[in-house]
Amino acid sequence: MNAAPDKPAPHPRPRVVILGGGFAGLRAAQALRSAAADITLIDRNNHHLFQPLLYQVATASLSPADIAAPIRQILKKQRNARVLLAEAASIDTARRVVRLSDGGEEPFDHLIIGVGARNWYFGRDQWAAHAPGLKDAADALAVREKFLLSFEAAEREPDAGRRRAILTFVVIGGGPTGVELAGAMAEIARRAIPREFRRIDTTTARIILLEGGPRLLDAFPEHLSARARRDLEAMGVEVWTDSRVTSIDDHAVTIGEERIVTRNVFWAAGVRASPLAESLGVPLDRAGRVMVGNDLSIPGHPNVFVVGDLACVNDAKSGAPVPGVAPAAMQMGTFVGRLLAREIAARTRGEPVLSRPAFVYRDKGNLATIGRARAVGVIAGRGFAGFPAWALWLAIHIVYLIGFRNRVLVLLQWAWAYFRYERGARLITQPSAERVAKLRGGV
Amino acid sequence: MNAAPDKPAPHPRPRVVILGGGFAGLRAAQALRSAAADITLIDRNNHHLFQPLLYQVATASLSPADIAAPIRQILKKQRNARVLLAEAASIDTARRVVRLSDGGEEPFDHLIIGVGARNWYFGRDQWAAHAPGLKDAADALAVREKFLLSFEAAEREPDAGRRRAILTFVVIGGGPTGVELAGAMAEIARRAIPREFRRIDTTTARIILLEGGPRLLDAFPEHLSARARRDLEAMGVEVWTDSRVTSIDDHAVTIGEERIVTRNVFWAAGVRASPLAESLGVPLDRAGRVMVGNDLSIPGHPNVFVVGDLACVNDAKSGAPVPGVAPAAMQMGTFVGRLLAREIAARTRGEPVLSRPAFVYRDKGNLATIGRARAVGVIAGRGFAGFPAWALWLAIHIVYLIGFRNRVLVLLQWAWAYFRYERGARLITQPSAERVAKLRGGV
Repeated sequence: MNAAPDKPAPHPRPRVVILGGGFAGLRAAQALRSAAADITLIDRNNHHLFQPLLYQVATASLSPADIAAPIRQILKKQRNARVLLAEAASIDTARRVVRLSDGGEEPFDHLIIGVGARNWYFGRDQWAAHAPGLKDAADALAVREKFLLSFEAAEREPDAGRRRAILTFVVIGGGPTGVELAGAMAEIARRAIPREFRRIDTTTARIILLEGGPRLLDAFPEHLSARARRDLEAMGVEVWTDSRVTSIDDHAVTIGEERIVTRNVFWAAGVRASPLAESLGVPLDRAGRVMVGNDLSIPGHPNVFVVGDLACVNDAKSGAPVPGVAPAAMQMGTFVGRLLAREIAARTRGEPVLSRPAFVYRDKGNLATIGRARAVGVIAGRGFAGFPAWALWLAIHIVYLIGFRNRVLVLLQWAWAYFRYERGARLITQPSAERVAKLRGGV
Repeated sequence: MNAAPDKPAPHPRPRVVILGGGFAGLRAAQALRSAAADITLIDRNNHHLFQPLLYQVATASLSPADIAAPIRQILKKQRNARVLLAEAASIDTARRVVRLSDGGEEPFDHLIIGVGARNWYFGRDQWAAHAPGLKDAADALAVREKFLLSFEAAEREPDAGRRRAILTFVVIGGGPTGVELAGAMAEIARRAIPREFRRIDTTTARIILLEGGPRLLDAFPEHLSARARRDLEAMGVEVWTDSRVTSIDDHAVTIGEERIVTRNVFWAAGVRASPLAESLGVPLDRAGRVMVGNDLSIPGHPNVFVVGDLACVNDAKSGAPVPGVAPAAMQMGTFVGRLLAREIAARTRGEPVLSRPAFVYRDKGNLATIGRARAVGVIAGRGFAGFPAWALWLAIHIVYLIGFRNRVLVLLQWAWAYFRYERGARLITQPSAERVAKLRGGV
């Protein structure tokens, strides 16, 4: 009614495509919530996953639904965003389109890539069949079923040698995921299930954690690495450092001259950036990550950004590399989302677009959990361990999950059960009798 | 020390093998808890499933772990019972052994068979690929993923005809499971998710419930069948009675001359007793169930019992057939377990074994839920419907699940969410981008 007659014609709404509904992509979408833009978030899964607790699904404490929410539901009220369940196959920065694996194309004016990392077997892709990794919900369910089935197969196996192989669990990789997995597996074998089996003694199961480098948790100070090792050993985990795996097959893991006969290998050793990055035609680092500028855009394409684990960038303030952790991914997503929102607003109003800020990582600390009432952490440069670290870990994860799931009581129950070694999701849902036979055969 | 010198030598402990860890088998094992016997419970899954709520897993309200518990955990404290994860392939009543599908054998003195029923496509086994049924956790997850993927595929489908086919959901079978599935699917499409999609209007999804007979829920009085139909229609479900399916393929369901173009067919029409029954060499009824005596043993083999859905028996008191419902399965299991416990105790003491009682079914009533605040029920011969029936249904199921899961708060939260149309487990965990493409293609 009282619109100024000389108001400029509305700028066409720019199309922002976001690849990946993880921490980075989702935060970017949310930071654009008030932007006059059409946002399309593309993910190959229908859900956002709270990945830091994925190992709890793999070790039967939580159901996938407890740590996941449909991306659509999260963005339901954000009317400028739509969600597509699809897989990006390649990116054409010249034509400004994303090619989808089903042959479709999605054009963009701005692109935010946050497709993260995948399991990486150091080029030995044949190991994948023997050593499942832990990147998504399907992975976690596969690990859970493999782990639980082993005890079932051992209970049925009369041959002592085979039984020992079935009850030997090897976790490869001494980072946070490997430590969490090995610790949780030891707790289950030694605390949660011993009284449920009649023929086998599950407390005799061997859980071996292999690390190629000289110590566990190399992102932490040395004394906390040592503490994590002592804690794991007290829980019954064998920790082998300086142990680089040279071969994995259906029967054994080989480390140079040593050979561990096992039917159960789990991979937590390495991830590599999604191969999608290669289609960008820009320099990648050794892990396949995109070397981005300090505004997180790629060289020569200021309208294309990379966020989260896929980005290789140094902190503009400290100069240190930004680590591949959830808080960094969230901060990058928010950074790019806000940057684009400001630029879109300026263009819509016909104002000049200001020069871009540089991404600064706010390191809020680092925590790694080992088992019930055991964890290590560094916060504000101060290291701590044991119950205080674990209580803080639990509190932080509950608070995050509550914001995300809004089911307070469920989470408190989970925390309580976790405290008491209970496991609420010890389920093998896929047909299993045949797989027990397979696990027993041919050791 | 003060053992009587003339005490008879201890009778060797009889071996009781129980096939199936469902309601019947588990109750039988539990009724034998004090028996001087070695009990082996064999199931091809590691968990007992609260089957009456399986449709809630299929429709994304609950996770499988919410309605399942490891059989081992349930029997943990019962020291005379062991659990084997294995599949029974056949039974040799003469040699008294159960042959397992992996080639093993399990000898028995007494056998209790409670392996239930399977989906049955009236001999058209090729329909199974197009119309998943709902008998176990893997089934429920398959239905959940298929249902959720359809909305994702429709959102991506530009062609209106294909979109309509993708958004047409056909549930075959108007018994309790079909009514529950159709009702829950309508609620999701019309209440839970409409605001999450930008291109499609999920409230236009067609949900069609096909029943071959003249009315839904034929175990209920006619006025309640009519009420269920009205309730479903008010919720947006098309109810087609007297509609016998003549063909199902990837593109359509055919009912005589009529053809419904659809990509989504779900099977709730028929079950048939497990084929294991055939190996007994005794008469079966038309549904493949074993015609047992009124002590639930099979003709000529008083040491072999059939319990639960696999048994065809008339109530010793009313003469009416015992229905294939959870309470009947539990009662049969307890009946046989107690009967055997008494006989084993008598033999151990060298006392005469008394003649066996006949199984009497205590009908506690029948409830079928239709949707939020809608259900029908018959209790003590009195029919009722609407909110009172639904509240009773919810209360009974919460009480049962609490006894079973011992997680009170989780269940109250579930009930509350269910009341408010929320769906807590809307997850597609298996790789899905390809499946979306497949759903869209070739309609």
